[in-house]
Amino acid sequence: MSSRPPSELVQVARLTEARLARMFDSERERWSRIDPRLAEAVDELSDLTSVGGKRLRAAFCYWSFVAAAPAKPVDDAINTAAACELLQTFALIHDDIMDNAKTRRGRQTIHTRHQERVVAEGWRGEPRRYGEGVALLIGDLSHVYADRLLGDVSPETRDIWDELRIELNLGQYLDMRSSAASENDRATAQQVVMFKSALYTIVRPLQLGASTAGRNDPELHRALAAFGQPVGTAFQLRDDLLGLLSNEAELGKPIGSDLREGKSTELLAVALENADQHQLAKLSRIGEEDLTDSEVADLVTIFHDTESIRVVELQIEQLIRDAEKAARTLPYAPEHRKILIDLGHYVAERTY
Amino acid sequence: MSSRPPSELVQVARLTEARLARMFDSERERWSRIDPRLAEAVDELSDLTSVGGKRLRAAFCYWSFVAAAPAKPVDDAINTAAACELLQTFALIHDDIMDNAKTRRGRQTIHTRHQERVVAEGWRGEPRRYGEGVALLIGDLSHVYADRLLGDVSPETRDIWDELRIELNLGQYLDMRSSAASENDRATAQQVVMFKSALYTIVRPLQLGASTAGRNDPELHRALAAFGQPVGTAFQLRDDLLGLLSNEAELGKPIGSDLREGKSTELLAVALENADQHQLAKLSRIGEEDLTDSEVADLVTIFHDTESIRVVELQIEQLIRDAEKAARTLPYAPEHRKILIDLGHYVAERTY
Repeated sequence: MSSRPPSELVQVARLTEARLARMFDSERERWSRIDPRLAEAVDELSDLTSVGGKRLRAAFCYWSFVAAAPAKPVDDAINTAAACELLQTFALIHDDIMDNAKTRRGRQTIHTRHQERVVAEGWRGEPRRYGEGVALLIGDLSHVYADRLLGDVSPETRDIWDELRIELNLGQYLDMRSSAASENDRATAQQVVMFKSALYTIVRPLQLGASTAGRNDPELHRALAAFGQPVGTAFQLRDDLLGLLSNEAELGKPIGSDLREGKSTELLAVALENADQHQLAKLSRIGEEDLTDSEVADLVTIFHDTESIRVVELQIEQLIRDAEKAARTLPYAPEHRKILIDLGHYVAERTY
Repeated sequence: MSSRPPSELVQVARLTEARLARMFDSERERWSRIDPRLAEAVDELSDLTSVGGKRLRAAFCYWSFVAAAPAKPVDDAINTAAACELLQTFALIHDDIMDNAKTRRGRQTIHTRHQERVVAEGWRGEPRRYGEGVALLIGDLSHVYADRLLGDVSPETRDIWDELRIELNLGQYLDMRSSAASENDRATAQQVVMFKSALYTIVRPLQLGASTAGRNDPELHRALAAFGQPVGTAFQLRDDLLGLLSNEAELGKPIGSDLREGKSTELLAVALENADQHQLAKLSRIGEEDLTDSEVADLVTIFHDTESIRVVELQIEQLIRDAEKAARTLPYAPEHRKILIDLGHYVAERTY
């Protein structure tokens, strides 16, 4: 088990955060000169981005660049990596509105805080609409800044970036729609994981890194996909497990959020396939916002009893073996292959 | 008065709409093969984009390109113009969530329709959250497609595009925040108009057109700003007047929306400066969502009685004179200057 972040992740996190801080500082300076109220929007973004996140997308992007072109200066890699992280900030802010999440990265979510601001300052209008409107805009601003950080890249790199963003949004649409419609079949869950985790989190960042380094040969990009897909799927399965079995302090959000949202997961699909009548009745409560902590605990027991948790753990192990095998075909130096494999192990085996 | 759309506008609308339809068709085809549910998101976007809008941003962009480089093939101009229109679709979808607008372009808004879908299909979860979540995502998707349509442009063109998008979001933030906080001072209203109308609607599209044509000389861009700023301000002042004095069928949204949102406008600023005690009491109801139609009619009377409507009409006339004067300095052929001036007259004098 390699549950502590590998040094390669920590190193990229530092580089990425410094790049982002530089951009936010200059934007804060520029807009506050026009109107201090405008700087509030930049500050919100800067605050949420700086308090954390594992910077996984940045790391896969950065090391893929270095592996693809070891002699190139890494400035472009850092910009692309920072763009991936800021796009993730955008996705989180908008997801938190859609899920009505109260906390993120251990802090109050943006829409919740601005909702409360209306009440505290005695402002006009519906607090919820204002809070969600502000978060919506700050998410949009993050999207623009992410795009601007990507900068002046080749058409091939931009194509990957565009595709990543379309997949992210369509994946989220399918996720939300299938949750609302209780379409908890395995095929849907797998499609959502493919879009939101395999492609968005791992495969596209790997390909972005290689492409930013000037390597656009289809064979390399297929090999990166073959490595990234199992890693990304393992990442999501681990995420689903941690969402049930971790604790709120480590997770940065409440335990059982996925259950309250009725999220289609492999865990749930396996449980539904194996459950008896009594267990099915309890599972049917999934997707209700008012699920109590004790009901969540009962559901965790069902996930154990239906072997769902064990099956998913075995799937993760198999996926990482597949990824290791695929990594051997990457036309990279052994030390660079090792870094990518280490990152793969980390995302699959992390404990928070 | 040139209230009918000039033929130059109609021509660009046709070209832009054909380009957008081609993109939507290919995206619908591509995603429905993976999952028909994904095509729903593309359809929503395609439907809203195809039912109208005056295509002003496209027209200023396109004719600025043609004026700047009359001999160049217009394919790049059409892509940039289409990108401007799709970005406008993004902005409208997100604005409609923030304002809780019920109709847009004469149709039910996306968030309203998807809210009703949850009820009609007996889906799970809070209808409002689902409807707004879907609209949020479809707006985000529009943002990505707009960006993709812009395509592989020069760094200078991309800088203008990035700036336009930052200004749009910051302008909207200032608008929403100052409305909530009842900061109805003239300086704030003017700042919002500068961001959301002068820059976003006119100046940046003009500059995008010239830049897409390969013309990035600062002097030309300053001249375009000098022409575009008064046109953009006149556009917004006309919009504010039509929002009060037009009718719902022509406007595509209810009369008095701005009053219910408490929007900071020049109209309101002038009225507040000139109002007596009795009128001030009535004006203080602005910003309340439950404003009745008869209260709106009373407020229109106050805007007349405080000379606010007459002052704004005079401002529009002066702005168009300023724009005509600025247009004379544009280093373009007389027939191209005339097209831009005609478009300026149209946005200032239109009756819907």
